[in-house]
Amino acid sequence: MPNPARLFQTFNAYQQTAAMRTAIELDIFTAIGDRQTTAEQIAQRAGAAERGIRILCDFLTVMGFLTKNEPHYGLAPDSALFLDRRSPAYMGSAASFLDAPEMLKAFDDLTGAVRKGGTMMGDEGTVGVENPIWVEFARSMAPMMMMPSERISLLVGAHKGGKCRVLDIAAGHGLFGIDIARHNPDAEIVALDWASVLEVAQENAKKSGVESRYSTIAGSAFDVEFGEGYDLVLLTNFLHHFDPPTNEELLRKTPAALAPSGRAVPLEFVPNDDRVTPPEAATFSMIMLGSTPHGDAYTFAEIERMFSNAGFRSSEHFRQPPMPESVIISYP
Amino acid sequence: MPNPARLFQTFNAYQQTAAMRTAIELDIFTAIGDRQTTAEQIAQRAGAAERGIRILCDFLTVMGFLTKNEPHYGLAPDSALFLDRRSPAYMGSAASFLDAPEMLKAFDDLTGAVRKGGTMMGDEGTVGVENPIWVEFARSMAPMMMMPSERISLLVGAHKGGKCRVLDIAAGHGLFGIDIARHNPDAEIVALDWASVLEVAQENAKKSGVESRYSTIAGSAFDVEFGEGYDLVLLTNFLHHFDPPTNEELLRKTPAALAPSGRAVPLEFVPNDDRVTPPEAATFSMIMLGSTPHGDAYTFAEIERMFSNAGFRSSEHFRQPPMPESVIISYP
Repeated sequence: MPNPARLFQTFNAYQQTAAMRTAIELDIFTAIGDRQTTAEQIAQRAGAAERGIRILCDFLTVMGFLTKNEPHYGLAPDSALFLDRRSPAYMGSAASFLDAPEMLKAFDDLTGAVRKGGTMMGDEGTVGVENPIWVEFARSMAPMMMMPSERISLLVGAHKGGKCRVLDIAAGHGLFGIDIARHNPDAEIVALDWASVLEVAQENAKKSGVESRYSTIAGSAFDVEFGEGYDLVLLTNFLHHFDPPTNEELLRKTPAALAPSGRAVPLEFVPNDDRVTPPEAATFSMIMLGSTPHGDAYTFAEIERMFSNAGFRSSEHFRQPPMPESVIISYP
Repeated sequence: MPNPARLFQTFNAYQQTAAMRTAIELDIFTAIGDRQTTAEQIAQRAGAAERGIRILCDFLTVMGFLTKNEPHYGLAPDSALFLDRRSPAYMGSAASFLDAPEMLKAFDDLTGAVRKGGTMMGDEGTVGVENPIWVEFARSMAPMMMMPSERISLLVGAHKGGKCRVLDIAAGHGLFGIDIARHNPDAEIVALDWASVLEVAQENAKKSGVESRYSTIAGSAFDVEFGEGYDLVLLTNFLHHFDPPTNEELLRKTPAALAPSGRAVPLEFVPNDDRVTPPEAATFSMIMLGSTPHGDAYTFAEIERMFSNAGFRSSEHFRQPPMPESVIISYP
């Protein structure tokens, strides 16, 4: 039976993002986790109107982030883990990057981006030189990358120890390299990013007590010298920002930087060949259309081809459910 | 197992709205319905970049609005019915109202609205005097109201004919009254709305050939005289914009306007008493929070109480699945 409900829901989907941003900003989930469970109590804690809180919390209940047993709201399990500020897995800060005003603004003219085939943001979008959004990324996205960075450490066998020189390209918050250093006391990390971003990575390295084995290279990955003898070159959330020729240009610099048994390790949103499954990886290309001139979510075949064209012998693909991203390991 | 995918999806939900607006603006669904099924063909028809169209169409496929059988895209059944401009049930125009820039803007500061307990739009939000958004509403929302207006005509027995004077309060596009006039050649409609909005209703009455039985009252429903002897007073999508005392003030004018066997007929989004089911009705209160000072989605008990306080004897509630809205019939 035809049903316009799904269409109506899509016209209003932007309200889901707005409701989540507001709930994080007013720290609703922490209030509820801290046993302020009625609209009145939450409103008092948040300094907000009870009517506003009631409508917001009902909406979040429909979305599945809260439970409701009149007059009490409760946290759904994922919200308790990811949205209560007191949880070690708190991810609310990710809103500051994923829903940054410049990102939302880019999608106000998605029609322009579809017509043009690339972002309508000026200056090459998010991949422009020294774009300050990457400082925001470094500051806000580390929590969302805790699970992927643990997976990468495990996949590359960091816990086994032994000499391990790591080049972390576009290090951002630095979490990927830092995690390897935490698991392997012999690992040495070289983080590469814009200078302003590296300050955040260095802070994080210090917090994790690995700063003595943490050094940096400031600049564009396309321009700087990598050095040599690395056992691992991490390329996390990097390749999707550029077109294949640009990526191949970068990857061609990599085999020479690797030790004989070294490996390159990209983390990527990897759709299947149909490009429409699995949903989280497949829809990622939309973010690249909105925010970069030529970026994309690449299939494994496409990633394999880029590495192959750049002189790598073979690549392996590791999906990491429930994570939306895949780890790839490429051998020169 | 904890899964951040749903949270990631919510941070990005605004992209669903953007993708739908863009697809409607570029008339993608009509192109595909007209057998332009590859990204290349659609891009040519839409005057857009093939890369942009491919990413957009993949995204719409993940959302379930398109199908994909590489390299061909197809229309999902709901899209063929509601989004191909050649369909008589085309609803794409609804984006112009539901996703009007001032609506989207209101949700940019949803935090402010939750704090305040009402819209951050100036001038009383969408319910301000002569707000031009109602002309946009009248021009763009008629298609989405075809099914509800047919249901109301049926419920009030318009097809049985006989003398029937109808007062259509906040008539907008006029469809509800016009549909009764189309089904009942003896029906006479009096449409009430802002003068600028009534022009649209009158155009529609003319198109439907009922203009000789169509008259108007220009002004605010709270201020004007209704007249008397009406068999039906329609209150479609009206009560949710105001608080109960304001609605009761309006409703108190109504019994005197009705003939002895007359009825008031609201169309409303009616959540259950828990206010979190069914989803489409329950989430509607969020739109009222964002765009009005005091509006809400009222439960049937609340609507019954408003009518009762205004001198009505009883009310009946008719859910209309798959429509998100309910019809209520109230007897004085």
